[in-house]
Amino acid sequence: MAQGNLSVVLHAQGDLRLVGDRPQTCYLLHGTIKVLLQMHSVGICGSDVHYWQHGRIGDFVVTKPMVLGHEASGRVVKVGSAVKHLKEGDRVAIEPGVPREMDEFFKNGRYNLSPTIFFCATPPDDGNLCQYYKHSANFCYKLPDNVTFEEGALIEPLSVGIHACRRGGVTLGSTVLICGAGPIGLVCLLVAKAMGASQVVITDLSTERLTMAKELGADFQLTVKRENGPQQLAKSVEDMLGAQPHITIECTGVESSIQTAIYSTRSGGVVVLVGLGSEMATVPLINAAVREVDIRGVFRYCNTWPMAIAMLASGKVNVKPLVTHRFPLEQAVQAFETTRQGLGIKVMLKCDKNDQKP
Amino acid sequence: MAQGNLSVVLHAQGDLRLVGDRPQTCYLLHGTIKVLLQMHSVGICGSDVHYWQHGRIGDFVVTKPMVLGHEASGRVVKVGSAVKHLKEGDRVAIEPGVPREMDEFFKNGRYNLSPTIFFCATPPDDGNLCQYYKHSANFCYKLPDNVTFEEGALIEPLSVGIHACRRGGVTLGSTVLICGAGPIGLVCLLVAKAMGASQVVITDLSTERLTMAKELGADFQLTVKRENGPQQLAKSVEDMLGAQPHITIECTGVESSIQTAIYSTRSGGVVVLVGLGSEMATVPLINAAVREVDIRGVFRYCNTWPMAIAMLASGKVNVKPLVTHRFPLEQAVQAFETTRQGLGIKVMLKCDKNDQKP
Amino acid sequence: MAQGNLSVVLHAQGDLRLVGDRPQTCYLLHGTIKVLLQMHSVGICGSDVHYWQHGRIGDFVVTKPMVLGHEASGRVVKVGSAVKHLKEGDRVAIEPGVPREMDEFFKNGRYNLSPTIFFCATPPDDGNLCQYYKHSANFCYKLPDNVTFEEGALIEPLSVGIHACRRGGVTLGSTVLICGAGPIGLVCLLVAKAMGASQVVITDLSTERLTMAKELGADFQLTVKRENGPQQLAKSVEDMLGAQPHITIECTGVESSIQTAIYSTRSGGVVVLVGLGSEMATVPLINAAVREVDIRGVFRYCNTWPMAIAMLASGKVNVKPLVTHRFPLEQAVQAFETTRQGLGIKVMLKCDKNDQKP
Amino acid sequence: MAQGNLSVVLHAQGDLRLVGDRPQTCYLLHGTIKVLLQMHSVGICGSDVHYWQHGRIGDFVVTKPMVLGHEASGRVVKVGSAVKHLKEGDRVAIEPGVPREMDEFFKNGRYNLSPTIFFCATPPDDGNLCQYYKHSANFCYKLPDNVTFEEGALIEPLSVGIHACRRGGVTLGSTVLICGAGPIGLVCLLVAKAMGASQVVITDLSTERLTMAKELGADFQLTVKRENGPQQLAKSVEDMLGAQPHITIECTGVESSIQTAIYSTRSGGVVVLVGLGSEMATVPLINAAVREVDIRGVFRYCNTWPMAIAMLASGKVNVKPLVTHRFPLEQAVQAFETTRQGLGIKVMLKCDKNDQKP
Repeated sequence: MAQGNLSVVLHAQGDLRLVGDRPQTCYLLHGTIKVLLQMHSVGICGSDVHYWQHGRIGDFVVTKPMVLGHEASGRVVKVGSAVKHLKEGDRVAIEPGVPREMDEFFKNGRYNLSPTIFFCATPPDDGNLCQYYKHSANFCYKLPDNVTFEEGALIEPLSVGIHACRRGGVTLGSTVLICGAGPIGLVCLLVAKAMGASQVVITDLSTERLTMAKELGADFQLTVKRENGPQQLAKSVEDMLGAQPHITIECTGVESSIQTAIYSTRSGGVVVLVGLGSEMATVPLINAAVREVDIRGVFRYCNTWPMAIAMLASGKVNVKPLVTHRFPLEQAVQAFETTRQGLGIKVMLKCDKNDQKP
Repeated sequence: MAQGNLSVVLHAQGDLRLVGDRPQTCYLLHGTIKVLLQMHSVGICGSDVHYWQHGRIGDFVVTKPMVLGHEASGRVVKVGSAVKHLKEGDRVAIEPGVPREMDEFFKNGRYNLSPTIFFCATPPDDGNLCQYYKHSANFCYKLPDNVTFEEGALIEPLSVGIHACRRGGVTLGSTVLICGAGPIGLVCLLVAKAMGASQVVITDLSTERLTMAKELGADFQLTVKRENGPQQLAKSVEDMLGAQPHITIECTGVESSIQTAIYSTRSGGVVVLVGLGSEMATVPLINAAVREVDIRGVFRYCNTWPMAIAMLASGKVNVKPLVTHRFPLEQAVQAFETTRQGLGIKVMLKCDKNDQKP
Repeated sequence: MAQGNLSVVLHAQGDLRLVGDRPQTCYLLHGTIKVLLQMHSVGICGSDVHYWQHGRIGDFVVTKPMVLGHEASGRVVKVGSAVKHLKEGDRVAIEPGVPREMDEFFKNGRYNLSPTIFFCATPPDDGNLCQYYKHSANFCYKLPDNVTFEEGALIEPLSVGIHACRRGGVTLGSTVLICGAGPIGLVCLLVAKAMGASQVVITDLSTERLTMAKELGADFQLTVKRENGPQQLAKSVEDMLGAQPHITIECTGVESSIQTAIYSTRSGGVVVLVGLGSEMATVPLINAAVREVDIRGVFRYCNTWPMAIAMLASGKVNVKPLVTHRFPLEQAVQAFETTRQGLGIKVMLKCDKNDQKP
Repeated sequence: MAQGNLSVVLHAQGDLRLVGDRPQTCYLLHGTIKVLLQMHSVGICGSDVHYWQHGRIGDFVVTKPMVLGHEASGRVVKVGSAVKHLKEGDRVAIEPGVPREMDEFFKNGRYNLSPTIFFCATPPDDGNLCQYYKHSANFCYKLPDNVTFEEGALIEPLSVGIHACRRGGVTLGSTVLICGAGPIGLVCLLVAKAMGASQVVITDLSTERLTMAKELGADFQLTVKRENGPQQLAKSVEDMLGAQPHITIECTGVESSIQTAIYSTRSGGVVVLVGLGSEMATVPLINAAVREVDIRGVFRYCNTWPMAIAMLASGKVNVKPLVTHRFPLEQAVQAFETTRQGLGIKVMLKCDKNDQKP
């Protein structure tokens, strides 16, 4: 099989290649809790493109060839002998982070913070944008029949939204401001609504993106202009809602937007930082502090796949409209180029020649 | 006006009267934070009927005539001089509990537990099933134009559901068992769904009630037969969901149903006790304890009106189908009789002769 | 070494033996995350005695010979090749529960609820009351130089107290009622005080035990007489404290004591069930429910060893007075008999012939 | 009495006067829930001095004469007719913040965030550094006999520490970094230890202050030098503790110290912002975000007096060493000068000529 394992490999900054004989997948599963998967659908994430364009994200640097991809689903083709809950043929969604050590974070239920965690397509760990991929069965989740492979792949970005909304404490009747209507802003919107938010305001520079947000359920859209000051924008948000939002989910990472997030949020509320910008940020920390507006970051997610599957299976969340482009694996470079240009929302790569359906 | 203040007064167990000259409403508002309301819609609660039939609930005994009613909305006709947030003509929903003392419970945000709280139609405090009623403006909440008076009155039972679901920790992807498909079970269902529950099982002896529950969004209905044992029912629930529910909301107060609730709930989950039965109950406490299934009661509610209004205004929750009967105030006895017979779900009394619309 | 591995084995109800050639310890550590330990100090727990006397606890039945013991510490004599944080010679405390599956409970940080967890001396899993014992290195915690082996062994009962107080929400200024002044009641007392409880009332039938409780820091002792009713006892507790306690930790499992716990606890407070009694209990559930007194059980503990070690190392908790008897491993039967008779508080078995110091 | 009501009045920036005929205290209590107090001990807070020196703190500007003082205790000399829990002669500690409106914050138990709250010595509200003072009885707390007036006055700064530690989630076994060993840093130290913190590191520029911190229980002291970079200091803290602290309480408000706080704190931990610096701060927000280190401010406190009294009465916290200077009310200017110069820790003004004892 190995010769047939077509993979999308980032060799170095700017050097993205389709490789046909990538030997990274070892099929030895004997005695393990691993499964071999035939990949079906893998979404392209902004971080994949960022590694391609810049060769690094923060301290994570691509120093040797790495398979990209971490928003993925596939079919089990082989199971390790210690695997109990999966069998050949099962359709699964893949959680890309697998803790390597049973440290305090793992034991406490916050395994995403474990510093030694394996994570698909974060250097030096290979991702799963390929035809065959081996993963810990503990982090593969069986999909019900009424959840498609693409929905399974979209659980990864959806998990970012779930974790962000959960960290923000979104609940029945919450009013929420979401800064940024890119893919992550949109999943936060979907999740906030599903958790009971009564009203969501979403902001962006692009009216096109805001139109999409409106279609996905945003109650108010606010087009940000470069000349708008943070306090002015905060005032607009308050005017729209009739009161300051309980929770703000900042998805841009832009300094002025973080400032807007703080000024906008109601006393006793929460600002969730999802977008990542420059290392140091100048923000009105006192304004947040004396109004007890908590500032909480998110690092990926933990314990989200089961609830995401429950939501998709029950139809409470509809992520299907997020997929705007599809490419066969063979056209991966073109697919990456599409994401790089910011076209549409989510580009999906189809890894199974014989089944390119959603 | 006083002579016109038609009120529904319970004189003693079994003795329900329409009284035209009830002098309980003092119109002196000078210097106060009170408002005088012209009542519009008041729902009949099971507790109103219980006081009528039995003269008491637990330690609360009707020892002198008491106006009934606490699920209510009306229009402001006069405001005390200290009132700032309401004005004549405002349409409001009434929170029936008003703390009398600034004790530890009030300061901690759990004012429903304050032992000296005023509460409409809990002896000896008069309710608001009448034409004119005076209440603390702090516990009257302005209704937006798109929320009807009847929706406003239904915030009271809805609040029981909100408080129960909040105490149970219902959130995105929760699976929930609700025992009992009466009015309270049904509002718990509506709220659980609005908070993101992926699947709700509801049980009842009556298939009719379960049919209504299905229409309101229940995913599974389980008809309870008297010969079913609690563990057998727990097994049926698990089979329906494919796993034990995270949270069970017990709305019957029946001992065997509390047992079912405990056996059914997943380890680490929560049983919320909403229904009230006999003083002592024999339950499998060890089963709950060693699986860390928490048992949490609810006493009325606190801090629910603003979020309930937000939900109704945004259309996230639809309570309108709950109203199955309407009577003018003058036919109050007939209305009470309807509730006593368990017909329909919610009986609404219309207190304003000139506006009997929802 | 195997022939020298003296072990305390329960063969069947009532049949406790010292066995010299127990082959249970396999020394094959190659490639594993396990360590081989030379046992030093092992405390006798009430459950060890219960298995000996009754052959079962609830659904856990002794059907084949089982090594007893789970309150233990020892010295690392061999490490598996995958072990990184321990080395030969390290002194460690042993957490007896080791999850076998990465299920939802483990991922959520509540691994004690994992139904397939390995647990020392819970049938059919062997305990560590022997000379040499193999355990997952992930659940062995290095002891600082200023923490003795016996303190290390006492982390196990201390963990029950930590988990109970944490589940109860004990914090600065809490007032706490502890029902039962046996070993578990006493560790709850120590922990509650260390977490900031301002006043602790402790109850027991035995004035002797209450005297020990007083020495360990209890503010009030209440001798329970068989003729005292639960409500009467609740009144006495309220009188002692000047108000009802915020939290009650029930350590007896006796039905009347659970009733006392409920009646005693302040509205909005918590009853923690630590003691285990009969399967069904008749309790004033409504009294708890309408005052929103939560009832929370505990099942063993999770995530307690690191904080327990921190407390012992810093001198914040002094568990040394709990050890009232010591026996060499060879006199295990006599030691068990001492515990069975309820003499003293904690009986410690010394497994290392060459070092019988605390 | 009015002519005798000697008060410490700030007329304008820099203009502090002792005024003998301040007419601010109206003795009309009829029908109210107020009490008239004869003041006993009032501590001088850094904010009092700041108003004196700068005439403002943030948006709060002294525009007309204002009585200073808000760390206070006194004796009840007259009670309003609606007061139930206090009587003439009672010794009380005064919580200086009294909500004026029953808004969402008050109802939710976070009344400190109510924007219209009355607060002693925050312009334009008068403080209580005078001989007679009227206050809401709901925010006066009776002192037990074994708690002195000065301890009662110190509950105010102690409350800042309680609220900060509570917001930080300090609990059994927590390791804590406190930045700044001024009066607030020291009360945070006392409270953190009382809540079960196993180890506390405290930092300051002054070795003198650190010596005092050591005497009060700090486990490690770190002298900050102006040339130390935040990451370097973070490294020193980690080296001292053997691991990063779970919680950092920042009491200086200095930008570089906030940076140190973020770099120092363990992933998944909390930075509590107590000190207030300049409006905008440049901080490594990404570092906090991707490690899920929450940033939480505190605004004064709420619901702290009862637990503080419980701690003082039980001897769990000893605040007496904090009082280093005492002056009779008549020497108020000299007392303020002492605080301005940073001498000692807490300066106490004695308002009762006939009782100048602690």
